[in-house]
Amino acid sequence: MQRTLLTIITEASLERRLIADIKTHGAHGYTITEAQGEGSRGVRQPGFEKAGNIRIEIVCEASVATQIALWLKEHYYRDYAMILFSHEVEVLRPDKF
Amino acid sequence: MQRTLLTIITEASLERRLIADIKTHGAHGYTITEAQGEGSRGVRQPGFEKAGNIRIEIVCEASVATQIALWLKEHYYRDYAMILFSHEVEVLRPDKF
Amino acid sequence: MQRTLLTIITEASLERRLIADIKTHGAHGYTITEAQGEGSRGVRQPGFEKAGNIRIEIVCEASVATQIALWLKEHYYRDYAMILFSHEVEVLRPDKF
Repeated sequence: MQRTLLTIITEASLERRLIADIKTHGAHGYTITEAQGEGSRGVRQPGFEKAGNIRIEIVCEASVATQIALWLKEHYYRDYAMILFSHEVEVLRPDKF
Repeated sequence: MQRTLLTIITEASLERRLIADIKTHGAHGYTITEAQGEGSRGVRQPGFEKAGNIRIEIVCEASVATQIALWLKEHYYRDYAMILFSHEVEVLRPDKF
Repeated sequence: MQRTLLTIITEASLERRLIADIKTHGAHGYTITEAQGEGSRGVRQPGFEKAGNIRIEIVCEASVATQIALWLKEHYYRDYAMILFSHEVEVLRPDKF
Protein backbone atom coordinates (compact mmCIF):
# COMPACT_ATOMS: atom_id res chain seq x y z
CA MET A 1 0.00 0.00 0.00
CA GLN A 2 1.48 3.33 -1.10
CA ARG A 3 1.49 6.08 1.46
CA THR A 4 3.33 9.35 1.95
CA LEU A 5 6.07 9.67 4.52
CA LEU A 6 6.09 13.30 5.63
CA THR A 7 9.14 14.41 7.62
CA ILE A 8 9.14 17.64 9.62
CA ILE A 9 12.37 18.88 11.19
CA THR A 10 11.82 21.82 13.49
CA GLU A 11 12.40 23.37 16.90
CA ALA A 12 11.81 21.10 19.88
CA SER A 13 9.68 23.73 21.58
CA LEU A 14 6.93 23.14 19.03
CA GLU A 15 6.46 19.46 19.87
CA ARG A 16 3.16 19.66 21.73
CA ARG A 17 1.53 22.07 19.34
CA LEU A 18 2.58 20.05 16.31
CA ILE A 19 1.29 16.78 17.74
CA ALA A 20 -2.09 18.40 18.25
CA ASP A 21 -2.01 19.85 14.73
CA ILE A 22 -1.10 16.48 13.21
CA LYS A 23 -3.95 14.68 14.91
CA THR A 24 -6.43 17.37 13.96
CA HIS A 25 -5.58 16.86 10.31
CA GLY A 26 -6.25 13.14 10.34
CA ALA A 27 -2.88 11.45 10.84
CA HIS A 28 -3.19 8.13 12.69
CA GLY A 29 0.26 8.18 14.21
CA TYR A 30 3.64 9.87 14.30
CA THR A 31 7.20 9.16 15.35
CA ILE A 32 9.48 11.70 16.97
CA THR A 33 13.25 11.51 17.28
CA GLU A 34 15.50 14.08 18.89
CA ALA A 35 17.86 15.78 16.51
CA GLN A 36 20.42 18.52 16.19
CA GLY A 37 21.22 20.55 13.18
CA GLU A 38 21.67 23.77 11.37
CA GLY A 39 19.63 25.45 8.70
CA SER A 40 18.00 28.68 7.76
CA ARG A 41 15.45 30.06 10.18
CA GLY A 42 12.33 32.14 9.98
CA VAL A 43 12.54 35.82 9.27
CA ARG A 44 12.73 36.87 12.91
CA GLN A 45 16.00 35.07 13.48
CA PRO A 46 17.76 34.90 10.17
CA GLY A 47 20.99 33.00 9.72
CA PHE A 48 22.12 29.75 11.16
CA GLU A 49 21.17 28.18 14.42
CA LYS A 50 22.33 25.04 16.18
CA ALA A 51 20.01 23.73 18.85
CA GLY A 52 17.77 20.95 19.96
CA ASN A 53 15.41 20.00 17.21
CA ILE A 54 12.88 17.30 16.66
CA ARG A 55 12.30 15.13 13.64
CA ILE A 56 8.68 14.12 13.20
CA GLU A 57 7.70 11.38 10.76
CA ILE A 58 4.13 10.82 9.68
CA VAL A 59 2.97 8.00 7.41
CA CYS A 60 -0.32 9.08 5.92
CA GLU A 61 -2.37 9.54 2.79
CA ALA A 62 -1.04 12.09 0.34
CA SER A 63 -4.02 14.38 0.95
CA VAL A 64 -3.36 14.41 4.70
CA ALA A 65 0.30 15.27 4.12
CA THR A 66 -0.75 18.15 1.89
CA GLN A 67 -3.17 19.48 4.49
CA ILE A 68 -0.60 19.28 7.25
CA ALA A 69 1.98 21.03 5.09
CA LEU A 70 -0.42 23.85 4.26
CA TRP A 71 -1.30 24.29 7.92
CA LEU A 72 2.35 24.40 8.96
CA LYS A 73 3.14 26.89 6.23
CA GLU A 74 0.40 29.21 7.41
CA HIS A 75 1.15 28.96 11.12
CA TYR A 76 4.86 28.36 11.56
CA TYR A 77 7.02 29.11 8.54
CA ARG A 78 7.31 32.78 9.31
CA ASP A 79 8.63 32.43 12.83
CA TYR A 80 10.24 29.03 13.18
CA ALA A 81 13.01 27.00 11.65
CA MET A 82 11.14 24.23 9.88
CA ILE A 83 12.04 21.86 7.08
CA LEU A 84 9.39 19.71 5.40
CA PHE A 85 9.91 16.99 2.87
CA SER A 86 8.00 13.95 1.73
CA HIS A 87 8.30 10.87 -0.41
CA GLU A 88 6.29 7.79 -1.21
CA VAL A 89 6.76 4.62 0.82
CA GLU A 90 5.37 1.13 0.57
CA VAL A 91 3.62 0.42 3.84
CA LEU A 92 4.02 -3.25 4.72
CA ARG A 93 1.46 -3.34 7.50
CA PRO A 94 -1.55 -1.97 5.68
CA ASP A 95 -4.18 -3.03 8.22
CA LYS A 96 -2.74 -0.53 10.63
CA PHE A 97 -3.05 2.55 8.43
CA MET B 1 23.27 0.41 -6.60
CA GLN B 2 19.57 0.17 -5.79
CA ARG B 3 18.65 -1.30 -2.45
CA THR B 4 15.62 -1.29 -0.20
CA LEU B 5 15.55 0.79 2.96
CA LEU B 6 13.25 -1.00 5.38
CA THR B 7 12.15 1.01 8.41
CA ILE B 8 10.60 -0.65 11.46
CA ILE B 9 9.13 1.47 14.24
CA THR B 10 8.16 -0.57 17.26
CA GLU B 11 8.39 -1.03 21.02
CA ALA B 12 11.86 -0.65 22.52
CA SER B 13 11.47 -3.89 24.47
CA LEU B 14 11.77 -5.85 21.23
CA GLU B 15 15.23 -4.54 20.34
CA ARG B 16 17.27 -7.65 21.11
CA ARG B 17 14.86 -10.07 19.52
CA LEU B 18 14.55 -8.00 16.38
CA ILE B 19 18.30 -7.64 15.95
CA ALA B 20 18.62 -11.42 16.07
CA ASP B 21 15.74 -11.80 13.61
CA ILE B 22 17.25 -9.31 11.20
CA LYS B 23 20.62 -11.04 11.15
CA THR B 24 19.03 -14.44 10.70
CA HIS B 25 17.31 -13.22 7.56
CA GLY B 26 20.49 -12.02 5.91
CA ALA B 27 20.75 -8.30 6.64
CA HIS B 28 24.35 -7.10 6.84
CA GLY B 29 23.71 -4.18 9.15
CA TYR B 30 21.12 -2.06 10.85
CA THR B 31 20.77 1.34 12.49
CA ILE B 32 18.69 2.02 15.57
CA THR B 33 17.51 5.38 16.84
CA GLU B 34 15.40 6.00 19.91
CA ALA B 35 11.98 7.41 19.20
CA GLN B 36 8.69 8.34 20.73
CA GLY B 37 5.34 8.28 19.15
CA GLU B 38 1.76 7.24 18.98
CA GLY B 39 -0.05 4.87 16.72
CA SER B 40 -2.42 1.95 16.71
CA ARG B 41 -1.31 -1.11 18.65
CA GLY B 42 -1.83 -4.84 18.41
CA VAL B 43 -5.15 -6.38 19.30
CA ARG B 44 -4.30 -6.96 22.93
CA GLN B 45 -3.83 -3.27 23.65
CA PRO B 46 -6.00 -1.37 21.22
CA GLY B 47 -5.98 2.37 21.07
CA PHE B 48 -3.19 4.85 21.28
CA GLU B 49 -0.03 4.55 23.25
CA LYS B 50 2.86 6.92 23.85
CA ALA B 51 6.07 5.32 25.02
CA GLY B 52 9.68 4.60 24.25
CA ASN B 53 9.98 3.20 20.78
CA ILE B 54 12.82 2.33 18.50
CA ARG B 55 13.27 3.06 14.84
CA ILE B 56 15.28 0.40 13.03
CA GLU B 57 16.60 0.99 9.54
CA ILE B 58 17.94 -1.79 7.35
CA VAL B 59 19.47 -1.31 3.92
CA CYS B 60 19.19 -4.62 2.12
CA GLU B 61 18.12 -6.42 -1.01
CA ALA B 62 14.41 -6.33 -1.73
CA SER B 63 14.09 -10.06 -1.13
CA VAL B 64 15.63 -9.75 2.33
CA ALA B 65 13.25 -6.91 3.20
CA THR B 66 10.32 -9.07 2.12
CA GLN B 67 11.50 -12.01 4.22
CA ILE B 68 12.00 -9.82 7.28
CA ALA B 69 8.56 -8.27 6.82
CA LEU B 70 6.90 -11.68 6.55
CA TRP B 71 8.68 -12.89 9.66
CA LEU B 72 7.65 -9.83 11.65
CA LYS B 73 4.08 -10.14 10.49
CA GLU B 74 3.93 -13.73 11.66
CA HIS B 75 5.64 -13.19 15.01
CA TYR B 76 4.87 -9.68 16.21
CA TYR B 77 1.96 -7.97 14.47
CA ARG B 78 -0.64 -9.53 16.71
CA ASP B 79 0.82 -8.43 20.01
CA TYR B 80 3.02 -5.41 19.41
CA ALA B 81 2.76 -1.91 18.06
CA MET B 82 4.80 -2.09 14.88
CA ILE B 83 4.93 0.01 11.75
CA LEU B 84 6.83 -1.16 8.68
CA PHE B 85 7.52 0.76 5.53
CA SER B 86 10.09 0.62 2.78
CA HIS B 87 11.34 2.49 -0.25
CA GLU B 88 14.15 2.26 -2.72
CA VAL B 89 17.43 4.05 -2.09
CA GLU B 90 20.58 4.51 -4.12
CA VAL B 91 23.41 3.11 -2.05
CA LEU B 92 26.55 5.16 -2.62
CA ARG B 93 28.97 2.81 -0.95
CA PRO B 94 28.19 -0.39 -2.84
CA ASP B 95 31.27 -2.31 -1.75
CA LYS B 96 29.92 -2.44 1.75
CA PHE B 97 26.57 -4.02 0.97
CA MET C 1 10.63 21.01 -5.53
CA GLN C 2 12.64 17.83 -6.01
CA ARG C 3 15.79 17.52 -3.96
CA THR C 4 18.06 14.71 -2.86
CA LEU C 5 18.01 13.44 0.72
CA LEU C 6 21.48 12.13 1.44
CA THR C 7 21.83 10.01 4.58
CA ILE C 8 25.21 9.27 6.13
CA ILE C 9 25.49 6.79 8.98
CA THR C 10 28.93 6.73 10.53
CA GLU C 11 31.03 6.90 13.68
CA ALA C 12 30.12 9.67 16.13
CA SER C 13 33.75 10.74 16.40
CA LEU C 14 33.57 12.15 12.88
CA GLU C 15 30.77 14.61 13.61
CA ARG C 16 32.77 17.84 13.62
CA ARG C 17 34.82 16.99 10.57
CA LEU C 18 31.79 15.93 8.59
CA ILE C 19 29.84 19.07 9.41
CA ALA C 20 32.73 21.14 8.09
CA ASP C 21 32.95 18.96 4.98
CA ILE C 22 29.24 19.25 4.32
CA LYS C 23 29.24 23.02 4.54
CA THR C 24 32.30 23.28 2.32
CA HIS C 25 30.49 21.40 -0.41
CA GLY C 26 27.51 23.71 -0.46
CA ALA C 27 24.85 22.12 1.74
CA HIS C 28 22.61 24.69 3.42
CA GLY C 29 21.72 22.58 6.42
CA TYR C 30 21.90 19.18 8.03
CA THR C 31 20.18 17.15 10.72
CA ILE C 32 21.97 14.79 13.09
CA THR C 33 20.41 12.07 15.20
CA GLU C 34 22.24 9.73 17.53
CA ALA C 35 22.14 6.10 16.50
CA GLN C 36 23.45 2.68 17.27
CA GLY C 37 24.04 -0.13 14.91
CA GLU C 38 26.17 -2.76 13.35
CA GLY C 39 27.66 -3.05 9.91
CA SER C 40 30.84 -3.71 8.07
CA ARG C 41 33.76 -1.42 8.82
CA GLY C 42 36.72 -0.07 6.95
CA VAL C 43 39.63 -2.32 6.15
CA ARG C 44 41.55 -1.52 9.30
CA GLN C 45 38.87 -2.89 11.57
CA PRO C 46 37.05 -5.57 9.64
CA GLY C 47 34.02 -7.32 11.00
CA PHE C 48 31.13 -6.02 13.00
CA GLU C 49 31.09 -3.25 15.49
CA LYS C 50 28.41 -1.92 17.80
CA ALA C 51 28.94 1.57 19.09
CA GLY C 52 27.71 5.12 19.13
CA ASN C 53 26.99 6.27 15.62
CA ILE C 54 25.44 9.33 14.09
CA ARG C 55 22.92 9.61 11.33
CA ILE C 56 23.32 12.75 9.24
CA GLU C 57 20.63 13.84 6.82
CA ILE C 58 21.21 16.48 4.18
CA VAL C 59 18.56 17.82 1.83
CA CYS C 60 20.38 19.29 -1.15
CA GLU C 61 20.69 19.40 -4.90
CA ALA C 62 21.71 16.15 -6.55
CA SER C 63 25.04 17.62 -7.62
CA VAL C 64 25.88 18.61 -4.03
CA ALA C 65 25.03 15.11 -2.82
CA THR C 66 27.34 13.65 -5.45
CA GLN C 67 30.18 15.94 -4.47
CA ILE C 68 29.77 15.15 -0.79
CA ALA C 69 29.70 11.42 -1.53
CA LEU C 70 32.86 11.61 -3.61
CA TRP C 71 34.64 13.54 -0.88
CA LEU C 72 33.62 11.07 1.80
CA LYS C 73 34.70 8.15 -0.36
CA GLU C 74 38.12 9.66 -0.83
CA HIS C 75 38.67 10.70 2.77
CA TYR C 76 36.81 8.27 5.04
CA TYR C 77 35.77 5.02 3.39
CA ARG C 78 39.09 3.33 3.97
CA ASP C 79 39.27 3.87 7.71
CA TYR C 80 35.78 4.39 9.02
CA ALA C 81 32.48 2.59 9.17
CA MET C 82 30.27 4.65 6.91
CA ILE C 83 27.05 3.97 5.06
CA LEU C 84 25.72 6.38 2.44
CA PHE C 85 22.42 6.26 0.67
CA SER C 86 20.18 8.76 -1.06
CA HIS C 87 16.77 9.15 -2.58
CA GLU C 88 14.62 11.89 -4.04
CA VAL C 89 12.25 13.86 -1.85
CA GLU C 90 9.68 16.51 -2.52
CA VAL C 91 10.66 19.54 -0.48
CA LEU C 92 7.55 21.33 0.74
CA ARG C 93 9.25 24.48 1.91
CA PRO C 94 11.13 25.47 -1.23
CA ASP C 95 11.93 29.02 -0.19
CA LYS C 96 14.27 27.69 2.43
CA PHE C 97 16.50 25.57 0.19
